[in-house]
Amino acid sequence: MSLLDRTDRNGVAHLVMTAPEKLNALSDAMLAALQETLDEIGESDEIRAVTLAGSGKAFCAGHDLKEMQAGRQAEDGGAAYFADLFTRCTRLMQTIQAIPQPVIAKVHGVAAAAGCQLVATCDMAVAAEGTRFGVNGVNIGLFCSTPMVALTRNVPRKRAFEMLTTGRLIDAEEAVEIGLINKAVPTDRLDAATTDLAETVAGKLASAVRVGKTAFYDQAQMTTAEAYAHAGDVMVRNMLDRDTDEGITAFLEKRKPDWAD
Amino acid sequence: MSLLDRTDRNGVAHLVMTAPEKLNALSDAMLAALQETLDEIGESDEIRAVTLAGSGKAFCAGHDLKEMQAGRQAEDGGAAYFADLFTRCTRLMQTIQAIPQPVIAKVHGVAAAAGCQLVATCDMAVAAEGTRFGVNGVNIGLFCSTPMVALTRNVPRKRAFEMLTTGRLIDAEEAVEIGLINKAVPTDRLDAATTDLAETVAGKLASAVRVGKTAFYDQAQMTTAEAYAHAGDVMVRNMLDRDTDEGITAFLEKRKPDWAD
Amino acid sequence: MSLLDRTDRNGVAHLVMTAPEKLNALSDAMLAALQETLDEIGESDEIRAVTLAGSGKAFCAGHDLKEMQAGRQAEDGGAAYFADLFTRCTRLMQTIQAIPQPVIAKVHGVAAAAGCQLVATCDMAVAAEGTRFGVNGVNIGLFCSTPMVALTRNVPRKRAFEMLTTGRLIDAEEAVEIGLINKAVPTDRLDAATTDLAETVAGKLASAVRVGKTAFYDQAQMTTAEAYAHAGDVMVRNMLDRDTDEGITAFLEKRKPDWAD
Repeated sequence: MSLLDRTDRNGVAHLVMTAPEKLNALSDAMLAALQETLDEIGESDEIRAVTLAGSGKAFCAGHDLKEMQAGRQAEDGGAAYFADLFTRCTRLMQTIQAIPQPVIAKVHGVAAAAGCQLVATCDMAVAAEGTRFGVNGVNIGLFCSTPMVALTRNVPRKRAFEMLTTGRLIDAEEAVEIGLINKAVPTDRLDAATTDLAETVAGKLASAVRVGKTAFYDQAQMTTAEAYAHAGDVMVRNMLDRDTDEGITAFLEKRKPDWAD
Repeated sequence: MSLLDRTDRNGVAHLVMTAPEKLNALSDAMLAALQETLDEIGESDEIRAVTLAGSGKAFCAGHDLKEMQAGRQAEDGGAAYFADLFTRCTRLMQTIQAIPQPVIAKVHGVAAAAGCQLVATCDMAVAAEGTRFGVNGVNIGLFCSTPMVALTRNVPRKRAFEMLTTGRLIDAEEAVEIGLINKAVPTDRLDAATTDLAETVAGKLASAVRVGKTAFYDQAQMTTAEAYAHAGDVMVRNMLDRDTDEGITAFLEKRKPDWAD
Repeated sequence: MSLLDRTDRNGVAHLVMTAPEKLNALSDAMLAALQETLDEIGESDEIRAVTLAGSGKAFCAGHDLKEMQAGRQAEDGGAAYFADLFTRCTRLMQTIQAIPQPVIAKVHGVAAAAGCQLVATCDMAVAAEGTRFGVNGVNIGLFCSTPMVALTRNVPRKRAFEMLTTGRLIDAEEAVEIGLINKAVPTDRLDAATTDLAETVAGKLASAVRVGKTAFYDQAQMTTAEAYAHAGDVMVRNMLDRDTDEGITAFLEKRKPDWAD
């Protein structure tokens, strides 16, 4: 049985992690399944947006601790395995931001440690009210250092520091407030709200969203002057797209665009 | 008729874009008028703060789409014109932050695309309740890549991503919440609130505000250690200003400072 | 009499600045006392968290203006003294973030100018309701350039700019909203709330918190890719800690960890 269900509908790939008995832990197998599927989606022209959810009681509880402990049996005490594990995990996180389609986390139950990192890493996130979020590795002596990279690029410094050093779980309302997620909705609206958001994005001109998403993360790491030089180039190329010409013309003529895309 | 009204009062230059029939679009002429006026203000010792508003129904609707489409008639399909346009637009945005006087956007109606970039770029912004803000170019196939540079340096990552890829307009309350503007006031108080803020700043020691504003953007792009080294130098020079000496002495003597400035 | 009271209890060093008649100004002597004590704490294995409070009516009113003005008597008008002062002040601020133990500001009354910088610099901050915060040097002609470095790394850009150029004091509620502090509590709960937070952190595995805090500030200044490479290394080393092994094993066995630490 696959660890990852995928259903494509209206240009959106809906992914569901299906290891509920492990609270969808990011085991070696789960990391591989996510990596393979996202790589595939990144190459696809049909898919214009992605949602990522977890089955069962939780979105994702983080790394697979049993598997990690088993890694200690190696001669080096697990050093090489752990290094490889975090490299693979980081590669997955960076793939989420590197593929051209927006990825939306659809979160319920709990998103803990690397599961919270997954939420922070997705381009957008919608959660059911009542969902709890935490980078709580510190509670078992493992500071959430890699989740911290994603968390601190989304939320204010002091709030991030508190979450990391106290291990406290925050609720969906607080997660909205600090910018970890975009919105919280009643549980029975989670499906609809996430799909609406994904299909809204999927309904835009795909080529524009693609260059835009890529530029989003690229420019974030540049000085303002560099960022403007880069974004200016992106805008010129975007303007020269025939579909963009049609989009603007249609807008000026007050009609719907007839996009080839 | 000029595209930009300017009224100087109490050390504040109040600028109003006056192309209401185009929703104050950033046409070539409007960009030139803003650039010329801000360059002039940047050289002025009299002006200590600036407000920037739009006349008619909207603050600013972004670029002038008709003019941009006309640019496609060139042999290169508009490539050179578009590149030059975004260079000029970027130059204007950077001038707003480069001149020594704080610039306050006074926003009503709608601030869309490059109009929203203008708001994000101003040092501060006050808006009338009911104002809507969006980087909605994606709706016509033109991702707001240059506005993104200003937006993402003001608001949390996921909220910026959502605005850019959905084109959704947010209201003034949400704009305050995410940090895009400083405050929202009832429409009939917009004038007074913006002027109050501008005159408050204009009432401070101008030399202190000038070095402060410049240092604000400079240090933001440095590492913390570099930023402290730079800010320390700025503080020393500020301390050696005779007016600052008088300001501190007056404070210690519980009287008003007698500033030459 | 010392300018700094220190009481160690349950792994937490509680520091109180005791120059109430000067509103705990960061005089040369106070800077020296704080520097010496924090350096000492940084070397200690017993201390796992720090709280920093002020005695009397205010947390800290900033630099000692009388002392600064006296510095002008030097032949160079104070230039060398001021440069040295800001260097020592910066060194203190950086020490707060450099020592391995989390430092929590416990704030009441007023935190102004360099006093507000102290709040922004501490890893976390709890304040009594009614506390006011400001970077109000601009009111006396001395722009808060060095406090700005800490402030702008904590709060949204436009809110920081407004505080710096208007000198307006904000209340504790607004300070929470913009991320300057973690939470505001009724005055009679300030002691308990700060101690609870400090003891919660002190109860975690100290080695994990130590590497975590250091990595927190290191990675914040790196690109995302560099940050992940660094954080991955930190995670591997953390995993190879025997206490972490015990922490994870205990969690999987649903018992309390038996940490040597």
